[in-house]
Amino acid sequence: MSTVSKARPGGRSARIQEAVHDAVRSLQASSSRDAITVPLIAARAGVTPSTIYRRWGDLAALLSDVAADRFRTPESPAETGSLRGDLLAWAAQFIEEMGSTPGRGYIIDVVAGDSTGANTGACVNYARSALKEIFGRAPDAGLRDLEDALDRLVAPMMYRIIFDSDRIPSGYSTTLVERYLAAHPT
Amino acid sequence: MSTVSKARPGGRSARIQEAVHDAVRSLQASSSRDAITVPLIAARAGVTPSTIYRRWGDLAALLSDVAADRFRTPESPAETGSLRGDLLAWAAQFIEEMGSTPGRGYIIDVVAGDSTGANTGACVNYARSALKEIFGRAPDAGLRDLEDALDRLVAPMMYRIIFDSDRIPSGYSTTLVERYLAAHPT
Repeated sequence: MSTVSKARPGGRSARIQEAVHDAVRSLQASSSRDAITVPLIAARAGVTPSTIYRRWGDLAALLSDVAADRFRTPESPAETGSLRGDLLAWAAQFIEEMGSTPGRGYIIDVVAGDSTGANTGACVNYARSALKEIFGRAPDAGLRDLEDALDRLVAPMMYRIIFDSDRIPSGYSTTLVERYLAAHPT
Repeated sequence: MSTVSKARPGGRSARIQEAVHDAVRSLQASSSRDAITVPLIAARAGVTPSTIYRRWGDLAALLSDVAADRFRTPESPAETGSLRGDLLAWAAQFIEEMGSTPGRGYIIDVVAGDSTGANTGACVNYARSALKEIFGRAPDAGLRDLEDALDRLVAPMMYRIIFDSDRIPSGYSTTLVERYLAAHPT
């Protein structure tokens, strides 16, 4: 959430936030990126443009909040019965979702409108949580350093998606997981 | 360079590009990010706003081009006499420059306005060139895989700078270089 945003769960503020987020998502599903404007979002959400400006500051900050929410995955990573299997499944899904054209667009939205670092930080925490859950349940996981796993697994995927997305080799997530497990055998 | 941009070196087109880039850089040195607009840039560069829109499409695309240019470093990485020393010096400088507040801002500019992937791709190529030069001259370098070095050195630094910049531990670049050299001893 951006600096200006302050939602009391269940209150009027939360209802406005939900209506505005819904409006953005529905416009994103039907319109090109350049066609989405604050007045259009406001009209669809049934609020005034100034409500949006007061709460989010600008369009980029609102798009960053909405995009960060998309990366908050409530489901647990798939369970396959082994650490290797869980990591392979999770990393393959990560690169498939985040590396898709809309996925990359949402990553860029998160980054571009995040003046406080809250939304980018939240994305790192989602990845930390998923890895922590995988490490916590695998009987063969041993003691695992989450930050080291971020460096070796998440960082290369994110870097390639953002900076080099046309050249990601097939099987890239598998390469990273195998390299990680070779460095930290079970 | 963005889609719309097409510079003939030395021609009128190149002169316009130089004047507009200079105007952006001089405004960035004196104004806050939000205060920089296309009409302001046009006035300072002595061109019409429509020249800028025709050539770059929008402000974000222009800022992306200018920011990508800042990462084109003509100097060679420092020579210290060993592979370890060269990598340590290069990585420390990378994180210091890119991880500074203006550095991070320029990275976000590159990413946010890069609809074609040309500017993000250029940034990866600058890192590839620096690593290639270091590997090429170190007598103890052996055969080094540039993509593997990007995954292990550049990707974690970029990921932390973009997503987790408040929590980068001191000595992070040293940790990454030592970890890289441990995986690929000379």
